[in-house]
Amino acid sequence: MANENSRKYQKIYETQRAVIERKFAQMLKGKEPKSLYKPCDFIIRSGGKRLRSFLVLLSTKAVGGKYSDAYNAALSVELLHNFTLVHDDIMDNADKRRGLPTLHIKYDLSTAILTGDTLFGLAYHYLLLDCKNNDKEVLSNFTESIIEVCEGQSMDEEFELRKKISIDEYKTMISKKTAALAEMCCAIGAQIGGGKRSEINALKKYGKNLGMAFQIQDDLLDVIGEEDKFGKKVGGDLIEGKKTFIFLKALEKAKGEDKKRLKKVIENKGIRKNQVRKYQELYEKLGVFKDTGKEVEKYSRNALNAIKNVKDDEARETLIWLTHALIKRNT
Amino acid sequence: MANENSRKYQKIYETQRAVIERKFAQMLKGKEPKSLYKPCDFIIRSGGKRLRSFLVLLSTKAVGGKYSDAYNAALSVELLHNFTLVHDDIMDNADKRRGLPTLHIKYDLSTAILTGDTLFGLAYHYLLLDCKNNDKEVLSNFTESIIEVCEGQSMDEEFELRKKISIDEYKTMISKKTAALAEMCCAIGAQIGGGKRSEINALKKYGKNLGMAFQIQDDLLDVIGEEDKFGKKVGGDLIEGKKTFIFLKALEKAKGEDKKRLKKVIENKGIRKNQVRKYQELYEKLGVFKDTGKEVEKYSRNALNAIKNVKDDEARETLIWLTHALIKRNT
Repeated sequence: MANENSRKYQKIYETQRAVIERKFAQMLKGKEPKSLYKPCDFIIRSGGKRLRSFLVLLSTKAVGGKYSDAYNAALSVELLHNFTLVHDDIMDNADKRRGLPTLHIKYDLSTAILTGDTLFGLAYHYLLLDCKNNDKEVLSNFTESIIEVCEGQSMDEEFELRKKISIDEYKTMISKKTAALAEMCCAIGAQIGGGKRSEINALKKYGKNLGMAFQIQDDLLDVIGEEDKFGKKVGGDLIEGKKTFIFLKALEKAKGEDKKRLKKVIENKGIRKNQVRKYQELYEKLGVFKDTGKEVEKYSRNALNAIKNVKDDEARETLIWLTHALIKRNT
Repeated sequence: MANENSRKYQKIYETQRAVIERKFAQMLKGKEPKSLYKPCDFIIRSGGKRLRSFLVLLSTKAVGGKYSDAYNAALSVELLHNFTLVHDDIMDNADKRRGLPTLHIKYDLSTAILTGDTLFGLAYHYLLLDCKNNDKEVLSNFTESIIEVCEGQSMDEEFELRKKISIDEYKTMISKKTAALAEMCCAIGAQIGGGKRSEINALKKYGKNLGMAFQIQDDLLDVIGEEDKFGKKVGGDLIEGKKTFIFLKALEKAKGEDKKRLKKVIENKGIRKNQVRKYQELYEKLGVFKDTGKEVEKYSRNALNAIKNVKDDEARETLIWLTHALIKRNT
């Protein structure tokens, strides 16, 4: 029964995702200048799970709207997401994304910057197509989330240089860098669907908590398990010396020698690959796998609680399914 | 009399400019994270003529609104303009702007990209503050102009690599890269002021033609005169091998040896500083200083004709004064 339902929601997701893919395949066809729209086309059609689009669509459905009311808004949030990826990849010096060369590698720095800027503009263009009476609210939510993402990205870069980061500061950073966008997707979806204030707020709360759970889980998954046959990289965050939730939690709990070893990760700006195992053992000893798992659970519970009263059965159940699909139990 | 009036309009400009400067001085005070808002603050307070702001304000006044109706929109277009400058400076590898180091030099590449993105977001934030009933139209104009600026920038970069550019292609490029923003400033000013369709269109036409005149004059001024005591660089566009209006006009008119010499500029991607004089003589011989001057005049006449029926005396006369102040007779 659970499995059958699971297939049902998976199908809803795949159907909507296919709609988005089709629209992206058509979006920039034949547009001039090619020097600009070819790289834009390359990035928007290079894959991705289209989860942000799906959050928009489900939120529209959740308040009684139709998926088709919000297709342009769904494209818009993906355009925005891709804009952040293109610019982030430059900042992070990344040369691969989704198995393909990043834009500044495939083309050049100027093209990548300009492509990002254009996606940013196109994001507003598509959002405006789905705005009816409440455009100001929709656009304000959209705009504030962008500013938050920029603030979060800046904090993230700043944290790399700072030695002391509190868990609260870390949470503020990810709430801006990651959760703000998920929150906004739910907000604008609900607004475009004509939701009431209380419905919009509930869905916003869902998006924000889902985003938090997702990011903290991401930190956790990075350091779980062993290097496997397929070359899954384990402990990448430790190797790069990133101050993630699980790391900061360990630092908070550790004493004596253990604390010294963790502080070394910061001082040396990371560890060697062959040291990952030892730090996994330390995390185990300090119990931070469990702590982090509980944190993830707390946020996903908050997310699920927020949508309890969603009236549309399909949207509510699909959101619940999505939450479980994204946030797997690790503890 | 002419002088007295001129002082009057100059005063209006300076008064409004001072308002904008005061608002910019306060805008980001104390905002966190400092790692992001300090560079934003640096660039928005580093000067500039605030002409785009002034176009917004005059257009609001022109249709019967008050300057104060559009102060946030006026800030918005300057934020947008500064966003384009920060990213353009990266693309152009420029290390100075308004006599100060460019952002990617003063800070670093990541900071400059992210500062640009933030200014982009802030531009929408401030624009939304001045949107009332017709927000969708205002925001559409704003958004389309951004996409046009990106297209224009991309065409400009593409033209550097291409050997053959027609004058029409060049005009399309500058209409996107330069004139679209001036046109948008007038459009949103008039919309925020509550203008009628015909009033909005007239002011848009003014802005677009002013932008075209300004850019073509810029090309012309670059190559007029001699190197002076103050080190005014003459012929910079020729030295860099830029395909400007005056250059393309010369290429169109030249025959035989003259044509060959002009083609060499393209082939060699520019000329040496000590060759500028010879090319100035060639331009003189071909009569393209006059042709270009006439082109500038044509566009400024179109601009002035467009605002003939503006009812608000102060706005109309100040726009006329501004046009003459920006577009000086060269022929």
